[in-house]
Parts: sequence; C-alpha cells; structure tokens
Amino acid sequence: MRYDFGSDNTAGMAPDALNGLIAANSGFARAYGADEITARAADQIRQRLDADAEVRFVFSGTAANAIAVSMLAQPYEAVLTHHAAHICTDETGAPGFFGHGVGLIGLPGYSGKIDAVALRAALDEPVVGHRQPAAALSVTQATEYGAVYSEEELRHLIEPARQAGLGVHMDGARLANAATAGFDLKDIPRLGVDVLVFGGAKAGANCAEALVIFNKSLTRRIDNRLKQAGQTASKARFLAGPMLGLLESNAWETGAAHANLMAQRLADGIEERSAFVLAHPVESNAVFVRMPDEAHQRLNALGWACYQFDDGSVRFVCSWATTEGAVDELLEAIASLN
Amino acid sequence: MRYDFGSDNTAGMAPDALNGLIAANSGFARAYGADEITARAADQIRQRLDADAEVRFVFSGTAANAIAVSMLAQPYEAVLTHHAAHICTDETGAPGFFGHGVGLIGLPGYSGKIDAVALRAALDEPVVGHRQPAAALSVTQATEYGAVYSEEELRHLIEPARQAGLGVHMDGARLANAATAGFDLKDIPRLGVDVLVFGGAKAGANCAEALVIFNKSLTRRIDNRLKQAGQTASKARFLAGPMLGLLESNAWETGAAHANLMAQRLADGIEERSAFVLAHPVESNAVFVRMPDEAHQRLNALGWACYQFDDGSVRFVCSWATTEGAVDELLEAIASLN
Amino acid sequence: MRYDFGSDNTAGMAPDALNGLIAANSGFARAYGADEITARAADQIRQRLDADAEVRFVFSGTAANAIAVSMLAQPYEAVLTHHAAHICTDETGAPGFFGHGVGLIGLPGYSGKIDAVALRAALDEPVVGHRQPAAALSVTQATEYGAVYSEEELRHLIEPARQAGLGVHMDGARLANAATAGFDLKDIPRLGVDVLVFGGAKAGANCAEALVIFNKSLTRRIDNRLKQAGQTASKARFLAGPMLGLLESNAWETGAAHANLMAQRLADGIEERSAFVLAHPVESNAVFVRMPDEAHQRLNALGWACYQFDDGSVRFVCSWATTEGAVDELLEAIASLN
Amino acid sequence: MRYDFGSDNTAGMAPDALNGLIAANSGFARAYGADEITARAADQIRQRLDADAEVRFVFSGTAANAIAVSMLAQPYEAVLTHHAAHICTDETGAPGFFGHGVGLIGLPGYSGKIDAVALRAALDEPVVGHRQPAAALSVTQATEYGAVYSEEELRHLIEPARQAGLGVHMDGARLANAATAGFDLKDIPRLGVDVLVFGGAKAGANCAEALVIFNKSLTRRIDNRLKQAGQTASKARFLAGPMLGLLESNAWETGAAHANLMAQRLADGIEERSAFVLAHPVESNAVFVRMPDEAHQRLNALGWACYQFDDGSVRFVCSWATTEGAVDELLEAIASLN
Repeated sequence: MRYDFGSDNTAGMAPDALNGLIAANSGFARAYGADEITARAADQIRQRLDADAEVRFVFSGTAANAIAVSMLAQPYEAVLTHHAAHICTDETGAPGFFGHGVGLIGLPGYSGKIDAVALRAALDEPVVGHRQPAAALSVTQATEYGAVYSEEELRHLIEPARQAGLGVHMDGARLANAATAGFDLKDIPRLGVDVLVFGGAKAGANCAEALVIFNKSLTRRIDNRLKQAGQTASKARFLAGPMLGLLESNAWETGAAHANLMAQRLADGIEERSAFVLAHPVESNAVFVRMPDEAHQRLNALGWACYQFDDGSVRFVCSWATTEGAVDELLEAIASLN
Repeated sequence: MRYDFGSDNTAGMAPDALNGLIAANSGFARAYGADEITARAADQIRQRLDADAEVRFVFSGTAANAIAVSMLAQPYEAVLTHHAAHICTDETGAPGFFGHGVGLIGLPGYSGKIDAVALRAALDEPVVGHRQPAAALSVTQATEYGAVYSEEELRHLIEPARQAGLGVHMDGARLANAATAGFDLKDIPRLGVDVLVFGGAKAGANCAEALVIFNKSLTRRIDNRLKQAGQTASKARFLAGPMLGLLESNAWETGAAHANLMAQRLADGIEERSAFVLAHPVESNAVFVRMPDEAHQRLNALGWACYQFDDGSVRFVCSWATTEGAVDELLEAIASLN
Repeated sequence: MRYDFGSDNTAGMAPDALNGLIAANSGFARAYGADEITARAADQIRQRLDADAEVRFVFSGTAANAIAVSMLAQPYEAVLTHHAAHICTDETGAPGFFGHGVGLIGLPGYSGKIDAVALRAALDEPVVGHRQPAAALSVTQATEYGAVYSEEELRHLIEPARQAGLGVHMDGARLANAATAGFDLKDIPRLGVDVLVFGGAKAGANCAEALVIFNKSLTRRIDNRLKQAGQTASKARFLAGPMLGLLESNAWETGAAHANLMAQRLADGIEERSAFVLAHPVESNAVFVRMPDEAHQRLNALGWACYQFDDGSVRFVCSWATTEGAVDELLEAIASLN
Repeated sequence: MRYDFGSDNTAGMAPDALNGLIAANSGFARAYGADEITARAADQIRQRLDADAEVRFVFSGTAANAIAVSMLAQPYEAVLTHHAAHICTDETGAPGFFGHGVGLIGLPGYSGKIDAVALRAALDEPVVGHRQPAAALSVTQATEYGAVYSEEELRHLIEPARQAGLGVHMDGARLANAATAGFDLKDIPRLGVDVLVFGGAKAGANCAEALVIFNKSLTRRIDNRLKQAGQTASKARFLAGPMLGLLESNAWETGAAHANLMAQRLADGIEERSAFVLAHPVESNAVFVRMPDEAHQRLNALGWACYQFDDGSVRFVCSWATTEGAVDELLEAIASLN
C-alpha cells in the first residue's frame, strides 16, 4: 500500500526538520524547555505572528487543541465550532477529557467554514442553567475540508464571538498551508485569537505543535498545566529543534507551498481526466473527490491508501514530500477507474 | 552552567537512537502507530520481557505513569506507592488529572523502596465509604533515590498486593539502569506486574516511553484511550525509531551500564576525596550527597547544575553521555569545597 | 404566575411522601444509608422490579444518570441515546463531567423513542482510534416527549445493543408514569437493563432518585463512588423516607395514574376546544402542543408558566398534584387564544 | 445500638426544620431554586453574615466543599489545609474528582487548627513546574477536633494566604457550633473568605448546606456549574425550607448552643468520673477521649456507637437532639469501664 496521499502525517520529517533535530542533539542542555533551541524556535514563531505571545511546544495536536479549549471554557460551558472540525470528529473526545466535560456545539457551514449566520444564532441563545452556554469559538485554518478562511470571513466570526464574551481558539494544524495560500499570519493576533495551535507535524516536523498564547491572562502557571497534562518534554529540544530547522530555513512555508501546488495539480488532473467531481474548492493541500464506493475500493485495491470522509467524499492529501511523479501515477489510477 | 549531572534528561539522543530515527524517516509510512518501525520496536521490548504484552509508545513518562494508574484504579480508589515516587512528587498531580481524582497514598521506606511492613499495614486498612481504598500498587525500578529492588524485595511487595486484589504498576523510567545493575527484566511479568512503563528518554532516546501492558484485560480500546489523552503519535515512527535503534544495538543496555559505571566512579571519588557522605547506596546511575546548602550553592556557582532533593541531599545523575573527564572535573570541584 | 403545568417538579411532596419523611424523622439513626428506613425503601423497589438489585438513593436525577453512564462507559467511549434525551439536552453536560469526557451520540426517533434502524447503524460503526466508540445505550422511560416504550420496542433496542457488548441504562425519571400507562416494571431486569434510575421527585417525593444496579459487576465500591461524587446522604433516611411513604402506600403508582389522567383530560380538551395540534401522542403525564409563539406568550401573560421545547412545541406537564379544576382553567385559557 | 453520640448526623431534623419543610410544601412553586422559600433562606444567611453574598443550597457537604475548592484552584494547583480536615480524610477524594486532579497539601497543627508557621513555610515554597503550587487555603470552623478558631487565629492564616494570592475556603459544616461558642459570623467576609460552606445538616436540617460566595468573580455561571455537578435541586424548596425554619426561629443557633452545652456536660463528667483523658479542648459539640481499644470496644458492646479517629482518640458528638439523660447514661457507661 502506498501512503503518499493517505494523510499529511504519512510523510517523514522534511530535510530541514531533520537537520534541525540533529543540530539540536549536540551536548547537554537544560531539560523541560529551558534550553536555547526552544527559545529560538519560539522567537521564530513570534516573528511570523508579529506578537509577543507565550509559546510552548507540545507533542500532539489533539492535546494542543484540547488544552487550548480547557483554557477558554469551563467544564459547564461549551465551545462553538464547525461540526466537522477535528476537535469534534477526530480527537476521541479529548476536549471533554482535558476539559472535564466541556461541551462541543457543532455548527454548519460549507467546506468546514463556520456559517456566520449559524454562529450568530448560537451566540443569541439565552444562558440557561441546564445547558452548557458557549464560552469559546474554535476555528480551523485551513479547514478540515481544505478551505482557507479570508481575513474578512474570520472577522465576521471572531468579532461577534468576542463581543459576546467568548474566547477564540484557532486550530492551525495546517496553518502553513493556509499561510502559503495567502492568509496573513499577522492577522491572527489582530483578529483577537486568544490561543493558536501552530502546526508542526503536517508541515514536516516530527510530532510537535506549538501552543501560542496571545492572551496573557491565560498563561498563569502554564508550565504546571502542561506538565500535569503529560505535555512537557523533558528533552524539549527534540520538539523545538525540527521546528527551528523548518522555520529558520523557511521550509515551513516552502514545503506547504509545494504541498498546495501538488494538490492543485491533482485536482486539475482529476477534473481533466476523470468523471469525478471535486467535493470542495481546493485551496490548500487536500483534494476531496466524490467517488462511488466501488471506485474508492478499486483505488485501494490498486495500492493507494485513501479514506472516505464524513461528507462521503474521498480525501487525498499532499505534503512537502509529495512528488509530481506520485501525483501523476495517482491520476493515472483514478483515470483508469472511469 | 554545565548540565552534565543535573538530570539524565539533559543528555541528547544516543548515537544509535539518532541513527534509528534517521533510518525511520525514509519514505511514507502509515500514521498512528500502524507502521513497521513501531511493530519492530515493540517486538524488541517483548523479547526482553519474554512476554506477549501489548506495547504502545507515548511521549512522556508523566503521561505513561498517569495512564497506567488510571487503568488500575478508579477515581474513588487510591494507589499505594512510595512517598518519594515520581508520581507523587514530580508529576504535578498528573495521576489525579488522568485518573479524575484518583488518590495517591505515600508509603515510607529507605532509598525510595517501599517498606514491606508499611505496605501490609496499608493493605490491611478496612474499606470504608469515606476514604479512597487502595486498588493498585506502584513501584519504581530503579527508585527515585537510585536504589534497585531485588526480585525478592519486589515479590514481598507485589505478592501481598495481588492477594489483596490490587493491580501493579511499575515505573521503569530508569529500567535500563536497573537491568544493567542485575535486575532480570523477565521477572517483571513473572512477578505479576500489570502495566510497565519501559523507559526511553533517560536511556538515550528522544521523548519516548513504552507502555507495556501484560494484563490483556486492560488493553480494551487502548488506542482510543491514548488518542483521547493526547498520547497518540501521528508520526509514530519518530517515537519508535530511536527506541528501535537503542534496542537493536543493545545501546539501551550499554548506555545504562556506562551511566551506572560513571555514577560509581563519582561516588567512589566523593567518598575518597571529600568529607561529604552519600545519602543512599549507589546502585544505578544517580549519586545523592549530603552537603550543606552553602556547599551546594558554591558548586552551582562553579558552574555545575545540580539540585537538592526532598530528603535534603544533592543529586548528581549520570547518563550514556557522561564522560570520565566530566566526572573527574566534578570531583575536582567537589573536593575543592571542603 | 401559576406553576401547575410548568413541570412535574413544581408540585410539592405528595401527602404520603411527607408522612414518610415525618415518620423517618424520629429518634437517632445510623448515618450514610445504614439505617432501617433506607433498607425498607430499597426492598420496596426490589419487589416492584422482582430483582435482587443493589439500590442506592441519591439527590438528583442529573447525578443519578451521569453516575450510571460513568459505570457503563469509559471516558474514551460514548453512550448512544436519543438526541432529545434529558442527558443530552438538560443536564449541562453532567455525563461528561462525571464521566470525565465520555461522549454522547444522539440518535433520531419519533417522540423521544430511539429509532431501531438508526441504532443498528450506530452499532455497526467500526471502532476507530480517533472516535469514541459506543459502550452503552441509554433509554428513557417514559420519554422526554411523554411517549411510553412497549416491551417489544425496548427489546428491539436493548437486544442488539447487548449483542454488540454495550451496557444499558434506563432513565426512569418518569418511570411511575410509564408503569401506570401499562409498562411492566419487571421487564426492566428481564430486558437486560444494567442500571436504572428509579424516579422519585417527579413521582411526589422530595429530591430523591434511586440508583438501581442489576448488574452486580458494577457495584464494586459503589459507596466510595457515590461519596466521592457528593451523592451520599449523611441523613439518608430523609431521601428514603418519602420514597418509602410513596411506595408502601402505592401513592407512587396512584399519583402517576392521576397525573396521566389529567394529561389525557388536558389533551382531549385541547383537541376539542382549540385549533392547536398535539405534537406527540399523550401516553403519560405530558402534553406537547404546536402553538404559535404569540399564543404561547399570551398564555404566559395570562399567568400560566409553560415552556417551549426543542421541537418547537409547548409542554404542559401534570403531576400527582394537578387538579381537574386547574386543567379546566388552563383549557379555558387555551381556548381563549383561538 | 444507640447512635446518640456516633455523629451529629444521626439526629433527625430539628422541629423547626421539619416545620419549615412542611410549610414549604404547600402549593406549586418554581423549580430549580427560583422560588420564594429559597430566596428567604438566602436572605437569612446574608443577614447573619452581613454581606451581599451569592447563596446556593446544595445537598451535601462533600459536594459543597469540593465545588468550593474547584472554584479556587485549577487541576494543576493545590489547596493548603489541615491534614485532618474533612476534605482530606473523609470525602473519598471528592476535591480531586470535582477539581479534576486538584491537589491537597495537609498541614500540621493542634486540634485541627492549621499551624501558622507551617502555613507560612508552605506559602514560601517556590513555584516549580513539576509540582502543584498552592492556590487556595481551606480552613474548618469548628475544626474536625472540635476546636474553634478565634478571629485573630484565622487572621494570622488568611492574611498571609491572601497576600500570597491564594483564595480562601471555609468549611462551616459545624459553623453553628462555632458561632454559639463565640465566633462572630460577620468576621467571615471581613477576614476575606471567598467561599463559605454554611452548614445545615449537622445543625438540624435535612441534607442541606449553603454555598455562600462572597467573591463575586467566582459566581459566573454558578447555576450551570452546580447543575452539571448534580447539585441543583429541582424542588429546591425542600433544601431551603428546613434551613429557613431553623434560621427564622434561631434554632440554628439554639440547637448548636444546646449541643455545645451537652458536649461540655459530657466532658466535665468524663474528667470527674473516669480516668480517661480528653484529647482536645472541648470548644464546640464534640468530645475526644483517649481510651484503650479494649475500653472502646466495651463501650460499643454496651450499645454505644462511637468511633476512633485518626489521632487514636474516640469521638463523641452531641447535637440539638442530645438529651441530658443520654449524656448521663453514657457517663455511667464510661465510668463503668474504669
């Protein structure tokens, strides 16, 4: 089975990430994140966001998102998000585990973007004792369906949420893909996001995401919080090193740009060479294709790992490691299904 | 500041671990632990333990221990352990967080070993509704104070615990050091341990520990449990790769043996060249020294990072990376304090 | 404002409940449920169910349901239930709080009854690591919309659930109303329910529900569990006394029969004297009426407290205390809205 | 077995409490605490404390204390309290359950009073990531060993705690006994207590305690918090009614004064007529007696329920319902043991 398009987690570390890790490995260093590599990687992130944020490196996006949510909502409160968001569908209830029962309220919207009218309706719900009232908004950039919010679209979600007193979390597992698709990272603090998960793994790092806290009132005893949650790296330089390698070399961006380009190549090919229809606009590194079950199974039988999503379409994801050759081979296979 | 002896987490990855990681990085691989590297590393561990255990790789010892505890004790129950155990003193209450309020009952004993008489007294406590009755025993091998339990000592703890219906967890963050000090790993399943944390980080890996579950009744939906707890690696080969490198090369053992030897060299030197007294027998890779505060501070001022422990002694830890030269330099510094 | 129909919690204790409480008050008694009143009330419940179940009295239905759910599903698992079930819509996420993140999966079905086809589809979902797989089924008898399951209907839900390895919880907040509508309580253990919440408050007790555990494997350290959850009554006779009064006198049944009769009278009157349509069959003690917002508001303005439900209809609930006179006055008011 | 002295929970409701409950039972009332009885009972409490506090009635002291603690400390923080405090020894880890892992740090001190020097040492501990730093102080008035803090003693605990940024919880399960022993309730807000548990059950109510929140920043969404925690009474008037009865009649005070007097009579008798020594000063309603195990067992065999405490002494507790005759009979029995 070939895993080239199964997920952007099936690629390894990008060369600059590996070099960053190797460079970080020399000598002794302070444990638990007090080392120089960690400090430099945090600086790289702050520069990209143009903000004096608190930055911590953690092991998994699931934990990063769940901890972010637990900072913004109490157990008796809820988070408004898209019903297809990763925190809703793919994290085994981690927000409820880290947040001790915190609720998730799934909102509708095309291609993983929250519908602004649905959000306003949710914000207008009266607070009653027997429900979990909303305390936070969670947006995903790029979305689970590969769409990229414009600054204006995000503003129309975040502004009313903030006016209603909600905190704002951004899941940026694929933030690099959004950034290279034209989204300005500096808009994140400008829009009033409180906590950002700045993606590493899908951008070519090992398992590493950065928790970026803009709202300083949320950072109190953050190190105790992370340690208790099992997300403090004793050898923190191995989380920060690959990130630093990607960021100093701009491979964080160039890898994502390549991934987006490959997704576009794949989408164009499917439209040209097959009868299948794209389920969502291709704005970042994923291509969703409406495909009969039988066609999907034949593709799997041909050796291509790919998965059906909640909306019934089949997802193909590109990464820094996707080659033009692989795209073309896959296109050949898809064309053969007709 | 020199971090050579501050902790066994201040060393980087051992060469074989780094090679294992680099080897694991090539090509595409299934995500979430379904890859071949992960399978091979698990096999290595099973061979060492001579047991058909379920093995999962997680990111941190804190999480590994806390998840193990949550498998063995309900929130309204408690875990019997040494009062100086890592789960009691150094994990920011992680067992209570992952275990939703599970209690810890600290027992006394020399050098981090649980006193068998104290354990029996705790096991004899009647179950009453208004207390958390014991449901598990947690032992640490090697202990926080560098001691190594003999098989017989462990048997005198584990047997009565099991007869009382308790589950058994072993924190093996420094299991490699215990093993090379003479402890037979195959005794772990023979003694009836239910869940073992098989240490990686302190043995020269990156941040990676293996959760080894001997008791198959505890493995139900283990992957859901780990995913929810933020301990599922998307790119699992980067957890398993360094472990595989260490295990296939036996660097897991040889590194620990070196660390133990360096600790012995340090201990011998302190006894010979200083007036300070060792606080605990040196059986693995750590040396605890009774030292006035002023001497400790002077040592820090001389550039040596080292920390005071709960029993008031100052700890020096050796790792695979500790050099004879560093030991001798440190001894010079300690001798100069007299 | 008149609260006669706002909820079945707006009525006080029924006379037999109050007498039971007064009788329980004399003299000294063992604390924490070890008293004779508690034992006798538990016996009354066991007789009605014809089962050797473990019985505990707790303070609130929310806690009773949430604790039941936490017995049947782990934090990384989920409970299948109707999307309009009380545990989904009216308990502020208590299952997630007591169950540490346990998930709820809402299924469709008319009038609060789970659709058997939808249940089977949910049971057929493959277990994947990144979702919370189902571990329990929760049914409500009578349902939130006043419907009463037949034995056969329940069997068609519970049998496949049990075959799939799920535990079964029944929320019986209005079990008395179901029983007097013809549901045989002895079917509950026969059908394989593991944990039942046997309703007291809505049946005329004070705030008291009984947790009835048929599955003895779930009772281990139940008293520790309840104490930790804040649901152990120090003066337990004040929970059991009113229940005992209701049960020994059969007022538990006769009060519910009266409530059902009053609901029928109200439903008949609405159909005869108004243009409003009933939203659900009236099988127990509640009447749901499709009514324009304006009509609902005028009814409130006329002094009748009543609430709009999730399906948009307006609910009127009868209790042991509802008088024919009140029904007729309300009908007068409703008729005047036309 | 006679339960006159086993606990102050073995007595029933005092006559004024029962009358309050009966009075509260008439007619229909708004559910969930929006009724008039609840409002009046809250007013009575506010008057006694001379403070504009938020008041909620809950079912159990365990829940009340645990919820209070969860308001003041995050899961990765800890609460400083006396090692023999009820939250440490008798609530089955409820603070950790409601507080999701929050830690308890037990401090020493005579007769259940926290030693001020030990508190200062704990407050001076540096915050490190791998421990749960203190976020709250919990004091018990009267203490588990029947002692009553003076205003000055409390001030010497609360002032440094507040200066260190900690919140303050007071467990007032026996506040009535402390009040009638001379403690001025109005000192509670003056001293800076954030959350008080105002005891009902031991003062002659049914199972009801009031959560009194002076610090308004803690009241946000308090009703959602309590509902989720299973501590919202649907028929709230049955919690508030007995409290109102006790408070309007001053039986809350007179009952406690009687209990204290009976304890004094018992203590005097023991000193006069037996060779046993009192273990603690008798300042409220409990008498702790140093007594050989054999004597304790003979007393039990003579039909008197009484329990050994953590300090090894045997406890006798008086309540509003303790009669002079019962005290004298018990004294006779104790004298006979010599």
